[in-house]
Amino acid sequence: MTFAFADGLGFTAAALTTASFVPQAWLTFRTRDVSGISLGMYSAFTLGIALWLAYGVMIGEWPIIAANVVTLSLAGAILAMKLRYTRRQT
Amino acid sequence: MTFAFADGLGFTAAALTTASFVPQAWLTFRTRDVSGISLGMYSAFTLGIALWLAYGVMIGEWPIIAANVVTLSLAGAILAMKLRYTRRQT
Repeated sequence: MTFAFADGLGFTAAALTTASFVPQAWLTFRTRDVSGISLGMYSAFTLGIALWLAYGVMIGEWPIIAANVVTLSLAGAILAMKLRYTRRQT
Repeated sequence: MTFAFADGLGFTAAALTTASFVPQAWLTFRTRDVSGISLGMYSAFTLGIALWLAYGVMIGEWPIIAANVVTLSLAGAILAMKLRYTRRQT
């Protein structure tokens, strides 16, 4: 019972942190306003998520694989827009 | 041996995704440029990390607790700056 509650908590946490990148990707796509977005953050974050994905594949955990495929797509898209829309260094 | 490698991969992934918020928090603190930062993202992300922390406490996993305490501080600081420095809605 307690363990099932923890599972639900972990699932909700994963869904929220993964889905949170949707409004950021959409805002960046719509406004091309990337001056306040950190290149260092999205470089390190995207690499970190790629390693989480590799970790999930290695230990064969589908929830980790699925969440990180989605997050990798979104964070990678934000990183690509940051690189593309940056006119001068900030 | 394989499992130890997976552990190292997971640890590196966690360190990267947690540390990635340092340059973002620093950029936002320094420039107060929050127009390109999504309020929806940082609201959902901060809540999600708080739930990850609760999950870590519930299952008694110290690595999950430690990583999420750090990420919660950083994401919470970025959310607070977004709320404070926003002049008009974007």
